[in-house]
Amino acid sequence: MNMPADIPQRDAIDQALVDGVLKHQLRPLAKTITLIESQRPDHKARARSVLEGLLPHTGNSMRIGISGVPGVGKSTFIEALGLYLIEQGHKVAVLAVDPSSSVTGGSILGDKTRMELLSQNTGAFIRPSPSAGSLGGVAEKTREAMLVCEAAGFDVIIIETVGVGQSETAVAGMTDIFCLLQLPNAGDDLQAIKKGIMEIADLIVINKADINPQAANVARSQIKSALGMLRHSSPNWTPPVLMLSALQKQGVAEFWNTIEDYRSTMKRSGEFDARRRQQARAWMWELIDQGLRARFASHAAVQQDLPGLQAAVEAGQTTPSAAASRLLGHLG
Amino acid sequence: MNMPADIPQRDAIDQALVDGVLKHQLRPLAKTITLIESQRPDHKARARSVLEGLLPHTGNSMRIGISGVPGVGKSTFIEALGLYLIEQGHKVAVLAVDPSSSVTGGSILGDKTRMELLSQNTGAFIRPSPSAGSLGGVAEKTREAMLVCEAAGFDVIIIETVGVGQSETAVAGMTDIFCLLQLPNAGDDLQAIKKGIMEIADLIVINKADINPQAANVARSQIKSALGMLRHSSPNWTPPVLMLSALQKQGVAEFWNTIEDYRSTMKRSGEFDARRRQQARAWMWELIDQGLRARFASHAAVQQDLPGLQAAVEAGQTTPSAAASRLLGHLG
Repeated sequence: MNMPADIPQRDAIDQALVDGVLKHQLRPLAKTITLIESQRPDHKARARSVLEGLLPHTGNSMRIGISGVPGVGKSTFIEALGLYLIEQGHKVAVLAVDPSSSVTGGSILGDKTRMELLSQNTGAFIRPSPSAGSLGGVAEKTREAMLVCEAAGFDVIIIETVGVGQSETAVAGMTDIFCLLQLPNAGDDLQAIKKGIMEIADLIVINKADINPQAANVARSQIKSALGMLRHSSPNWTPPVLMLSALQKQGVAEFWNTIEDYRSTMKRSGEFDARRRQQARAWMWELIDQGLRARFASHAAVQQDLPGLQAAVEAGQTTPSAAASRLLGHLG
Repeated sequence: MNMPADIPQRDAIDQALVDGVLKHQLRPLAKTITLIESQRPDHKARARSVLEGLLPHTGNSMRIGISGVPGVGKSTFIEALGLYLIEQGHKVAVLAVDPSSSVTGGSILGDKTRMELLSQNTGAFIRPSPSAGSLGGVAEKTREAMLVCEAAGFDVIIIETVGVGQSETAVAGMTDIFCLLQLPNAGDDLQAIKKGIMEIADLIVINKADINPQAANVARSQIKSALGMLRHSSPNWTPPVLMLSALQKQGVAEFWNTIEDYRSTMKRSGEFDARRRQQARAWMWELIDQGLRARFASHAAVQQDLPGLQAAVEAGQTTPSAAASRLLGHLG
């Protein structure tokens, strides 16, 4: 098929970025992600052109989402997992989706010393969350950064997020498997259920299980019974509950075996590829809907009429359908 | 404020419908709803004009959503409640949202003999689900029928739906209180949790509690503990769990007292009106989004490009953002 016509010709600088990423060089990789995160319109066009050049070389990683409340030990776990995987010959990229980081100055991965050993390892690439914009914007940039990392030869991409609900849904929507870290405390599982995170998890890990094994066992059976009540989307996979101590490096190999088991089960059933296709399609339509709304909202007559009509609708003075019809009529 | 310009002048026939509805006559009421349910463009324009005439007289009812799986006794309960309310001097309209009715020929309220006494009572108006179209279309027509019933003097509107998940969300989005009927069987509550219905319920009723009071008590405490795990949206209201026997007419008065308690609590806190404003606003934006998507999909260049681009996105040959940008570019 024809490539989109609005992709500009790549100049020498951008072609050098493409070539550098494809040669697995870290500097062009970081520069490309910076270009993707930029708000400048000319940078956006350049980022799109570089991405098109990288696209044929993407898709060959295991995309892993990891979530859990602050204090659950995400950084320690990701460092232990990353070092284990590098030892096994993998290349590991760690990205983050944290919409709060523009306010707080970056709570996730902002401080690389939190993963000191991993960040110094040449087999690893760690990048904090893009900090500008809405959750949708942050997620969009992280998705594209993930593609760049894949083109740069990283075969395991870990996307970290905090346990607040909406960002979890976004991360589950861009990864192959979504893992929830839990504390062996009464109540942590209930919070995850209330926020709707438990039902989108493909794998649950009880971290710090070594501190109080008895409490961890109780937590495990509570989580198992909660999982039995919730709907899980896959007909081929029942989310397992693993015990782990990231600090003691216990259970990390078992975690990775479970991921590989998941991948082969889902690949065999066709669900792995179906999930990726569905994610790409949903992402495209989300961007189309956003674009349609933005065009609508920027229309002069709509801007003039909208506040009054919305107030009339809320006051019951006109019907939503009459208001919607009048506003849409402005588009001609 | 100015009324929307695209509302046609009402002719004599439609003015007669407006006048008849406002005089609380049942024939014009039924005719107006038939007009609303029609797919013909000229009927849609007329329906909008009649609705505008009725709007100043709407909003003065208690809007009650009632859901539950087939066999839970919804019809028996609604008949018992309706007859009780008419005895108390109320006027009761019963509508339905059943998107499956176009396939099955109308499973809900299609057979008026299911509410024989209520349907013969002049204080009641019963209307089966509109049968044409998607859930969105069915919900839209039921919302508008609800407004017509309010203008016709009905002060309690009951909207019935089946326990399948999506139609429940639609009904909760158009009513002041959403009630879930449950059987005193182990597992019925789990099904409601899995389908996401339990968490949107403002009030839970265990029907057929007389058959096995012990089982009903067990079900009640199970539901209460499940409710404790789920998030409920209101800070001012904790969903109660009532016991009831619609067949024996036990608990109907208590049900209505709870509804009145809910209404005064929510009115006092301002949440009642805020929910209605939010519902109207959400409804308007849903229609705008639908309209924007429809315009987009009917654009010739979009129709030509979309299949190829969507396939390229799914195959990872182009990015969702490049595809979305190209498609949006066609709109000029």
